[in-house]
Amino acid sequence: MHKKMMLAFVISSLFLSGCNDDNDKDENIRTEAKTEQPTTENIGTVKNVILMIGDGMGPQQVGLLEEYARRAPNSIYNSTGNKTALSKIADAGDIGLSLTAPFGSNGSLVVDSACSATQLATGIAAGSEMIGLDNDGNIVQTILEKAKSLGKATGLISDVRITHATPAAFASHQAHRSFEDKIAVELIESGNVDVLLSGGARVFLPADIKENAATQQLMSDLGASSSIYKKSKRKDSRNLILEAKEDYGFSLAFDNAQLQKVTGDKVLGLFANSLMSDGIAYHACKEANTCTQPSLREMTITALDILSKDEDGFFLMIEGGQIDWAGHINDAGWMLHELVKFDEAVEAVYEWVKDRDDTLVVVTADHETGGFGFSYSRKDLPEEKILDGDGMAGNAYKPLYNFGPLDNLDRIYKQSATFYDMMTAVNADWDFSNTTGQQWADVVNQYSDYKVTVDQAAAIAEREVNEYQVDGHPYLGASEFPKIVDFKEFYVYGDDLHADLIGRAIAAQQNIVWGTGTHTASPVAVYAFGPKNITKTFSTMQHHVDLGQKMMAAIK
Amino acid sequence: MHKKMMLAFVISSLFLSGCNDDNDKDENIRTEAKTEQPTTENIGTVKNVILMIGDGMGPQQVGLLEEYARRAPNSIYNSTGNKTALSKIADAGDIGLSLTAPFGSNGSLVVDSACSATQLATGIAAGSEMIGLDNDGNIVQTILEKAKSLGKATGLISDVRITHATPAAFASHQAHRSFEDKIAVELIESGNVDVLLSGGARVFLPADIKENAATQQLMSDLGASSSIYKKSKRKDSRNLILEAKEDYGFSLAFDNAQLQKVTGDKVLGLFANSLMSDGIAYHACKEANTCTQPSLREMTITALDILSKDEDGFFLMIEGGQIDWAGHINDAGWMLHELVKFDEAVEAVYEWVKDRDDTLVVVTADHETGGFGFSYSRKDLPEEKILDGDGMAGNAYKPLYNFGPLDNLDRIYKQSATFYDMMTAVNADWDFSNTTGQQWADVVNQYSDYKVTVDQAAAIAEREVNEYQVDGHPYLGASEFPKIVDFKEFYVYGDDLHADLIGRAIAAQQNIVWGTGTHTASPVAVYAFGPKNITKTFSTMQHHVDLGQKMMAAIK
Repeated sequence: MHKKMMLAFVISSLFLSGCNDDNDKDENIRTEAKTEQPTTENIGTVKNVILMIGDGMGPQQVGLLEEYARRAPNSIYNSTGNKTALSKIADAGDIGLSLTAPFGSNGSLVVDSACSATQLATGIAAGSEMIGLDNDGNIVQTILEKAKSLGKATGLISDVRITHATPAAFASHQAHRSFEDKIAVELIESGNVDVLLSGGARVFLPADIKENAATQQLMSDLGASSSIYKKSKRKDSRNLILEAKEDYGFSLAFDNAQLQKVTGDKVLGLFANSLMSDGIAYHACKEANTCTQPSLREMTITALDILSKDEDGFFLMIEGGQIDWAGHINDAGWMLHELVKFDEAVEAVYEWVKDRDDTLVVVTADHETGGFGFSYSRKDLPEEKILDGDGMAGNAYKPLYNFGPLDNLDRIYKQSATFYDMMTAVNADWDFSNTTGQQWADVVNQYSDYKVTVDQAAAIAEREVNEYQVDGHPYLGASEFPKIVDFKEFYVYGDDLHADLIGRAIAAQQNIVWGTGTHTASPVAVYAFGPKNITKTFSTMQHHVDLGQKMMAAIK
Repeated sequence: MHKKMMLAFVISSLFLSGCNDDNDKDENIRTEAKTEQPTTENIGTVKNVILMIGDGMGPQQVGLLEEYARRAPNSIYNSTGNKTALSKIADAGDIGLSLTAPFGSNGSLVVDSACSATQLATGIAAGSEMIGLDNDGNIVQTILEKAKSLGKATGLISDVRITHATPAAFASHQAHRSFEDKIAVELIESGNVDVLLSGGARVFLPADIKENAATQQLMSDLGASSSIYKKSKRKDSRNLILEAKEDYGFSLAFDNAQLQKVTGDKVLGLFANSLMSDGIAYHACKEANTCTQPSLREMTITALDILSKDEDGFFLMIEGGQIDWAGHINDAGWMLHELVKFDEAVEAVYEWVKDRDDTLVVVTADHETGGFGFSYSRKDLPEEKILDGDGMAGNAYKPLYNFGPLDNLDRIYKQSATFYDMMTAVNADWDFSNTTGQQWADVVNQYSDYKVTVDQAAAIAEREVNEYQVDGHPYLGASEFPKIVDFKEFYVYGDDLHADLIGRAIAAQQNIVWGTGTHTASPVAVYAFGPKNITKTFSTMQHHVDLGQKMMAAIK
């Protein structure tokens, strides 16, 4: 690293932490502790902190949710005043923006979920893909651990896996996010987390679970259906679920019925072998009244019930994790359902908090995913229209481009399966080496309101040599990749990219564009609700390191 | 339009304007007039309103500026504490977000600058590409006109043309943004605007200016250099510059020297035949001390000097118009220079306002342009690194992807000509029907710090049949278009797209992605600075129609 770069880092770091001499020079702008080192003295304190993270929920994603809620002709928000819970929190609290990039000596331009969650959880700069470590790889205290040390109850909720990057960074410390088996051990053994509700049972089960009838029977006796224990991702013979119950006093739950009956103040709920139900499937089972898993909202309500019994207060992190997954595969239909699902959980938190003055709620994202946008195009130009107004002076109303009809919002929401599901429908074994346009057209036309011809779908099947092949890399090891043309370097996840190609095939009809199959560095929205002296400090352009420091300072 | 959609519009409109009965039902969340109809009673008032619009400055663009200022190793902000003026305003004031789409009966998903500026200027929903009209095409009062009716001074500043969509919407009323000749007449004749500083002389000059030696002599006598009057875009013989001086009492200025000496309270400054200097050229002439045009900052300071003499107060709109132009052609280097240029003007406003309590400053964008983002890729993976920390447990630090080295920020800023300039360098007559990879590689390698091979540059030269050809359309009339592959429908501006292809050729090296050649619907940031009782109402998720209403209500 260049010396100058190092210097810039040092200056920036000092600036962020507010302890450089320069502060004196522009004192006049330092209102409301927005740029000072947040302390419990200058920021005010609360008993409870609830942090909600929409993974991949950049401003664009929030915009999609708001436009859907406010203006989709058949918006499911039509019956409730077209107001999202996010908007309620924005109206009652404060909004800010936050930069998310890895900050400090291993700094770079774009963040992954592990680094982002670590910076949020600790208020300390971290490197890429690290879990609960600082830039130099040192173990640092998280806000969850601080809360526990203050005698508070703690909880983590996610609709992906409890060992996935975002929840992991609040209660474990690992050199890499992929060490989920070690993360599972930390979550159970550390004693720092009281309530764990998510998917990811496969990381808690012994390596031989598929062959071991006795362990299978044991899991069944504990209440788990076979789908929960169908596979293990451990390399050892530990059954962390059993250990959690017998050695660490956790009550167990494997479905919503069990969760609703759970007693005790320590709960391990693992509701799926890997990811929990996606938003499209969730809204379908909710409509049919057939859901067996708890929703993000139901997990949230249960966690609040349990944690709020602790008189010392609590810290709770709730992740809407699948917004990001949908963004990665450029699947707007799935993404919208995830945003609605997340907003239901926000609603639960808002209802719980709105009449209290002892709780800080922060809703934000760890980064944007997909470079999502509605955009205007040269396809399907609008028809001419005659308007009555006195300013038209004989001219017709005829915009030069297609600015996107609003019924796209309904049509996007109508999508009845994720692009992943469509891939599975094309080939259940996920072998895409020889698929056809006909196969892809069939699934797209079955599950999407946007229809494609076989010719249009042919591009979804195309593959090419992976010119960036890296031996042993979890994705880049593949010698062949689905064929993305423009910005191909930013599409990194191997065969998943057939899904991104589905997105491209219907994008022009949807008035939707995507820039990437990974993340972008867009600043993300921060919604803060709670005591005004605290929340007003969030209404600025901060960094997630600041945000972490503010939350750390506020909890007492 | 479907009835249900109409109903949804009506409900939404009522909701936005806050006069529906539903308000009573959720009274508890209606704090701080954030969702009520803003009135001079409930929002508080100020003497002066300064509105700054970064055209195309979405959250992503603001993020680029902030990352450059805070972390570029050789940031030009290094000498001033790495703090943008935008951040100073954010720290001293409040931040919010705002949706920008055309709202109401001609609603759609994505906005153009004319509709967006109209909604901001009037607080009333408008259709696409309209100037100062409501949805039905009726002429409606703008905030500038309200200010004038209150006896205040008024001004419009832009670094594109004064008749371009954004400034036009504050002081004229036309069925379409392309009627710039009519807009010019309104700006001069209406008597509503006192200070007009921008480019666009060509729209004020008689149609025969190229042939008419007498008029040329007249312009020269008035102080204009020949570059100012080289071309006309009028269809009649009016010389609006002369009329402005003789019939409407405007002092004239055609360069910065003249502007600095101007007297009187009405000034027409036209500093270019069409667009003013781009940010790259501006920073170069500034460094060499050879600028003849005033900068956006200098125009701002002059306007504040003149307007603030009016004891009744003033309204001033300042547009950084070329952020958008750079976004359209996916030119990150140019865009960054425009953001810095705009931020210089923000600094001037901040310095003028910071110790006052009678002025409201709002800085926002009309929309995002380009779907810009930094993103992580599969190209140039980082090297392994050993870290000392106790959490590494024997593991090296080796992120799986290229998260973007920070020196990209410097390298992007180093670009020494816009992509438009590069196009001109390839063919001065803008005939791109037969260009070669070699030609494009030569210009890219001359002006950009990112080098391309002839093979890589070959894609910039490619063209194809425009399958969306529309006879008589200003851009889509072309039978041939530069060849964009993915998301091609969102690249609409004919030969300009060769510039977008330059962006693609260097994107992977820059860690940059672009989603579109047009706009996206991302909510944009709103920075509000001034009396706290007013600015706090901006810290929510609003719509530009709300924003317009709040500013309208605040000026008194």
